[in-house]
Amino acid sequence: MDNRPIGIFDSGVGGLTVASQVMKQLINEEVVYFGDTARVPYGSKTKETVTKFSKQNVRFLLSQNVKAVIIACNTASANSLKELQDTFDVPIFGVVNPGAKEALGVTRNKKIGVIATSSTIKSQAYQKALFQGDEGIEVFAKACPLFVPLAEEGWVNEDITFATAQKYLGDLIKQDVDTIIMGCTHYPLLRECIKKVVGDDVALVDPAYETAVLVKEYLTESHMLR
Amino acid sequence: MDNRPIGIFDSGVGGLTVASQVMKQLINEEVVYFGDTARVPYGSKTKETVTKFSKQNVRFLLSQNVKAVIIACNTASANSLKELQDTFDVPIFGVVNPGAKEALGVTRNKKIGVIATSSTIKSQAYQKALFQGDEGIEVFAKACPLFVPLAEEGWVNEDITFATAQKYLGDLIKQDVDTIIMGCTHYPLLRECIKKVVGDDVALVDPAYETAVLVKEYLTESHMLR
Repeated sequence: MDNRPIGIFDSGVGGLTVASQVMKQLINEEVVYFGDTARVPYGSKTKETVTKFSKQNVRFLLSQNVKAVIIACNTASANSLKELQDTFDVPIFGVVNPGAKEALGVTRNKKIGVIATSSTIKSQAYQKALFQGDEGIEVFAKACPLFVPLAEEGWVNEDITFATAQKYLGDLIKQDVDTIIMGCTHYPLLRECIKKVVGDDVALVDPAYETAVLVKEYLTESHMLR
Repeated sequence: MDNRPIGIFDSGVGGLTVASQVMKQLINEEVVYFGDTARVPYGSKTKETVTKFSKQNVRFLLSQNVKAVIIACNTASANSLKELQDTFDVPIFGVVNPGAKEALGVTRNKKIGVIATSSTIKSQAYQKALFQGDEGIEVFAKACPLFVPLAEEGWVNEDITFATAQKYLGDLIKQDVDTIIMGCTHYPLLRECIKKVVGDDVALVDPAYETAVLVKEYLTESHMLR
C-alpha cells in the first residue's frame, strides 16, 4: 500500500481528460495535477525544450511527494518519456504506448491514422509504438497544428473547423484508415467535427482511457494502491 | 555617439519585421535580436507571466551590452512596458504608442479598429494610447487568437483564413472603422486576406515602421547614434 498521490502533468489544461480517467478508474487515489500554462503549448517546440520543461515538471511533482508520474501531454510523452524514466527513480508513464495499444486492438484493416502536434509527429513515437506492437501495420501520420487553437477558441463545431479538418484529414481518408489515434489531449474536443469528416466507420481512439488502465495495472501489481 | 548595439526582443520570430524596419531606418546601427521561441506565444498568457518573461529577456539583452531595448512584441509592449521602464536604467521602447500615433494620423472618421492577441486586447493598452492622443476617438477592439497559428501554418491566403478573418472582422466593418491597427507582429503576414475582408478603403497600420521612427528620433536627440 502507498498512500502518496499520483502526479500528472501536461503542457496546459488538456491533460485534465487523463486526470479524469485516472480518477474514474482509480477511485481511491489522490491526484496532483500540474498544468504548465505559462509555457503552453509544447507541440511546436523542439525535443530539447520539451524535455527540459518536462524535467522541471517532474521535479515539481516529486516535491509534492508523488508515487508515480503520468505524462498526460502527448508531445512530452512522445519526446521525453525515455529520458525522464532514465533521469528519475519514480515510475513514469506516457500516453503514447497505451494509445498505440488501444488502436492496435481496434483496427480491422491494419491501417491506422495518427493525428497530433507537429512535434509529436516529428518524434515518430506513435509510429514506432505501433510497429513494435505489429510489424504489419500501416501508419499514416498527419500534424494538425490548428486543432489546438481552434479548440481553445471554442470553435468546436464551426464551418471553419470542419473545413480545417477536411484539409488535414483528406489524405488519411484516401489511405482508407479505419482507426485514428487522437494524439493530442485537445483533439477529443473536436470529436464531432472530426467524425463528420472521417465518417462513422472510422474509430477515434483517445489514449486517456487506456493510460489509466495501464497505471491501474501497474499500481495493483506493485502493491502501490492507496 | 554610442557604438553599442540596439537590443530587440519578441516572443518569437514575428518581431523580425521590427528589426528589419530598424535596420532600414538606422543603417549604421548594430542590432541584437532575441526571440523567445522556447516560450512563444505570449498572446494567451497573463500580464504577470508576460512581464516575468520580458524582464528575463531585457536582462539577456543587457548582458549583450545594448544601449536601448525595443519590445517588438505587442503583447509584451501592452502588458509590461511601464514595469520594464521602471525596473531597468536603459531606454526601453514598445510598439503600442507608435502604432497608436500612426493610426491617429491616418484616420479620417476617427473610428479605429484594433486587432491583436487576447492578452493585448485585455490590457487595453492600445485603447488608452489612442484616447490619450485624441479623446474624441472611437476604438473598436477585437482579439483574433487564430491569426497567429494560421500565419504559422503558412495558410496566408486560404479560404479558411479568409473565413476566419470574416468572422473576426465583421463587427469592425459594421462599426465603419476606416483604420485598423495590426497589433501583433504576425498579422501583416495575413494582410492580403484581411484586406479582402475589410476592403481597400480601410487603412491597415503596422506599428513596426513608426516604432523605428521613434527610436531614431530618440537616439538622434540623445546623441546616441553609432
